[in-house]
Amino acid sequence: MSKLVVVGTVAFDAIETPFGKTDKILGGSGTFVGLAASQFEVKTGVVSVVGGDFPASYLEMMNSKGINTEGIEIVKEGKTFFWSGKYHNDMNSRDTLITELNVLETFAPVVPENFKDAAIVMLGNLHPQTQASVLDQMTKRPKLVVLDTMNFWMDIALDDLHSVLKRVDVITINDEEARQLSGEYSLVNAAKRIHEMGPKYVVIKKGEHGALLFNHGKMFYAPALPLAEVFDPTGAGDTFAGGFCGYLAKTEDLSFENMKNAIIYGSNLASFCVEKFGTERMQELSSDDVKTRLNAFKDLTQFDIKIS
Amino acid sequence: MSKLVVVGTVAFDAIETPFGKTDKILGGSGTFVGLAASQFEVKTGVVSVVGGDFPASYLEMMNSKGINTEGIEIVKEGKTFFWSGKYHNDMNSRDTLITELNVLETFAPVVPENFKDAAIVMLGNLHPQTQASVLDQMTKRPKLVVLDTMNFWMDIALDDLHSVLKRVDVITINDEEARQLSGEYSLVNAAKRIHEMGPKYVVIKKGEHGALLFNHGKMFYAPALPLAEVFDPTGAGDTFAGGFCGYLAKTEDLSFENMKNAIIYGSNLASFCVEKFGTERMQELSSDDVKTRLNAFKDLTQFDIKIS
Repeated sequence: MSKLVVVGTVAFDAIETPFGKTDKILGGSGTFVGLAASQFEVKTGVVSVVGGDFPASYLEMMNSKGINTEGIEIVKEGKTFFWSGKYHNDMNSRDTLITELNVLETFAPVVPENFKDAAIVMLGNLHPQTQASVLDQMTKRPKLVVLDTMNFWMDIALDDLHSVLKRVDVITINDEEARQLSGEYSLVNAAKRIHEMGPKYVVIKKGEHGALLFNHGKMFYAPALPLAEVFDPTGAGDTFAGGFCGYLAKTEDLSFENMKNAIIYGSNLASFCVEKFGTERMQELSSDDVKTRLNAFKDLTQFDIKIS
Repeated sequence: MSKLVVVGTVAFDAIETPFGKTDKILGGSGTFVGLAASQFEVKTGVVSVVGGDFPASYLEMMNSKGINTEGIEIVKEGKTFFWSGKYHNDMNSRDTLITELNVLETFAPVVPENFKDAAIVMLGNLHPQTQASVLDQMTKRPKLVVLDTMNFWMDIALDDLHSVLKRVDVITINDEEARQLSGEYSLVNAAKRIHEMGPKYVVIKKGEHGALLFNHGKMFYAPALPLAEVFDPTGAGDTFAGGFCGYLAKTEDLSFENMKNAIIYGSNLASFCVEKFGTERMQELSSDDVKTRLNAFKDLTQFDIKIS
């Protein structure tokens, strides 16, 4: 069974959407990536940090899904990273109400011994130096390094970001961030510029407008599944990345054709994530649910034109 | 050979984009729909009106493409409809600088005798009463009536729009207009409400984000082809509609499965339209160009997941 190591946040989120409001619930990029990857027969290890206030039951839930949590450091005297946000009516934009970094402020990820030879490494959205420190710990070059980042790091740590990007195979980024990083408005040209920075594969996430995969001139597009109701978009991007990495780890096939499938699986899982608050839907998700929705994706995108 | 009758504008456009600026060039929804449909073996008749200032060479160009222009009334003492617009840097928004309705102000479309039994009618974006008057002239119920409209008519002639919609099979509309017409934010719910108004098929155009086809719970999605440069978006939506109607007229197959193909052809042709100013690219487009790009659409969207 392939190993996937994921570094990211494990956090408390408090979320307000037009549909309701939560107290502190389980969140964090590492959590969403891990839960998505747990849909595949893969050994997934999450590397993160939480405080003494973090319920053991959350870790037990992750373990019950087959997620290895040895790499989640528990700082007894510290408090868990907390984020609170409010979504606007269109669900495409949100305001951050509270960000308490807490134990994340001094987070130095330690990859468990047993995961230092993982085939796939997913570097969640953290300081580029922190991301690089994970790669430094690997005993052999992973088959695939996937990195997620955001405009914040481009603003305050661009040199560090460029430096870690040289060691990365796949970058996942949203459309505005791709434009900021590349200085190009057209996403086709943006991908070209980002290839020159290191990543052979550029995945541009466009939220409700789907995702694009670029690989030196080759392109693939996966739509988001149109839904009657998007209940809570939190974690959808991380779930997408987790589905992508999990599928690649399971199939052990890093060809462009198989990456297309991985992108579809990412969209598939993300379409569930948004149906309930936080990780709720992902916790109860069955493999039958995923299979059924895969058929919905086929109906949505596959056509049969005979070229005469 | 199937007949397609198109009612729409034949106009002068003056366009400014970040790439340059044109004098008065050939434009109009009827023109773009007709040119797109001319890619298929179909008898296309355009019903419109122009002024005495409209060059005969434009009509000759259309005739040379097999487009019947008998239905284009020439008001010798009048001036042709003129629109001028300026696109912003993102190419997704534009300002209208000038709208001179001229001969369009008193336009009463007359369908040529030979097209009154057309299989497919495309009602371009005009006053809903004008659109209805075209249907009144048909000697038999067309197999398919396609209607395009915009927010302007929802604002000033909503009752008339509702009235003509009862006689329509397919509506093409952009996402914001779908939301305005239905009062629903989710496009899935918007399509449901619009089905109740008449159209069994709802095509929602999202510009660079592609197009969605809805049919009572069934959905299909065609992306726009990601391009390095969008030179001039004018007419892309009409070209999309023309490709859709032209393909359906040629294949004479109105099943949902074949409508998927029609949507892909619409996106395919629209991706050429934006490559040059106005109708320039559409005038020189060869069937080989279209075939080659169809393969690009397949590469972009088709995948092969074995569900185990």
